[in-house]
Amino acid sequence: MARWEPNARERLERAALGLFAEHGYDATTVAQIADRAGLTKSTFFRHFADKREVLFGGQDLLVERFGDAIRNAPPGATAAGCLAAALEAAAAAFTPDRHELAPQRRAVIAAHSELQERELLKRARLASAMAEALRGRGADDTTARLAAEMGVLAFSTAYARWAAPENRQPFTEIARAALGDLQARAAALGESAGAHR
Amino acid sequence: MARWEPNARERLERAALGLFAEHGYDATTVAQIADRAGLTKSTFFRHFADKREVLFGGQDLLVERFGDAIRNAPPGATAAGCLAAALEAAAAAFTPDRHELAPQRRAVIAAHSELQERELLKRARLASAMAEALRGRGADDTTARLAAEMGVLAFSTAYARWAAPENRQPFTEIARAALGDLQARAAALGESAGAHR
Repeated sequence: MARWEPNARERLERAALGLFAEHGYDATTVAQIADRAGLTKSTFFRHFADKREVLFGGQDLLVERFGDAIRNAPPGATAAGCLAAALEAAAAAFTPDRHELAPQRRAVIAAHSELQERELLKRARLASAMAEALRGRGADDTTARLAAEMGVLAFSTAYARWAAPENRQPFTEIARAALGDLQARAAALGESAGAHR
Repeated sequence: MARWEPNARERLERAALGLFAEHGYDATTVAQIADRAGLTKSTFFRHFADKREVLFGGQDLLVERFGDAIRNAPPGATAAGCLAAALEAAAAAFTPDRHELAPQRRAVIAAHSELQERELLKRARLASAMAEALRGRGADDTTARLAAEMGVLAFSTAYARWAAPENRQPFTEIARAALGDLQARAAALGESAGAHR
């Protein structure tokens, strides 16, 4: 019975976000999502564990992409260079045709504290994965953890700016600027280091 | 019926951690905790919403202490100076007589993924509270968010070192060193800022 369905994942995602917006997240069922996407429930479950994962499956992919990009950065790359590579790799998930989905996703999450908690946990996992990849390249633990938090901040700032309805700038440009801003702030926060030793 | 009980909160905490270690977190009831502490269930519920809060109530107090310390830092204090003040204020919660409780608490949390998630969420709230207090002092949003993450990293590193069974160093010293290390790393991460702009 299992047929290959072109773009099933994206069709399910669009159907789900539409239904969440129209009827509310709690009232929407997997059967309704599959139905609107013109697919079966079993196709839904091949792509997502449950309806919540429609909102967060993308973050699991990001964890992989960020980790891979850091592991594959040139041997001489600094920790900051690795963050830049990770953000570059994330850009593939934030294409113009996905732009309209972002505000829908944000609105659903903003309305449910349980989903906000899930988002925070996914971000913590993203930071752990980045720190792990940086340690794998020989970064000391303190640098790895701080750089990973900077990476997550750069990503979340860039995502929020990219997702703004009026934005037309590509994700890569926005992310590069966000990382540069954070690096400048990090330099300033580091300057007074002597005073607290 | 409600009597004032000296040190009720700490007695309940010690009783709970002992029971969690002996019988497991899931098997322990509020009635057993109150009983071992020589107190009533209603006294328990005046201090904690449920048994989980015995583990996390301290983090709510930290959120207040960190925020107050940042708000009350001298007008000319830098963001890094505010973090130092916050860590200094936290030290009151990490006195030598509480040292033995820390490994018990960590062991319970390490054994339960739901409690680990709660810990991550409490840390995210700690970061939000610090960022909010820094913005309240006029820090720009990027500096506030980055400094808050540095503060949480300094705190969690310091707490882990302080809680190590063999440690005898006061929390304040450990926290000061952890913050200094992070500032040095921040300076290094900021150095290559030009390359990514």
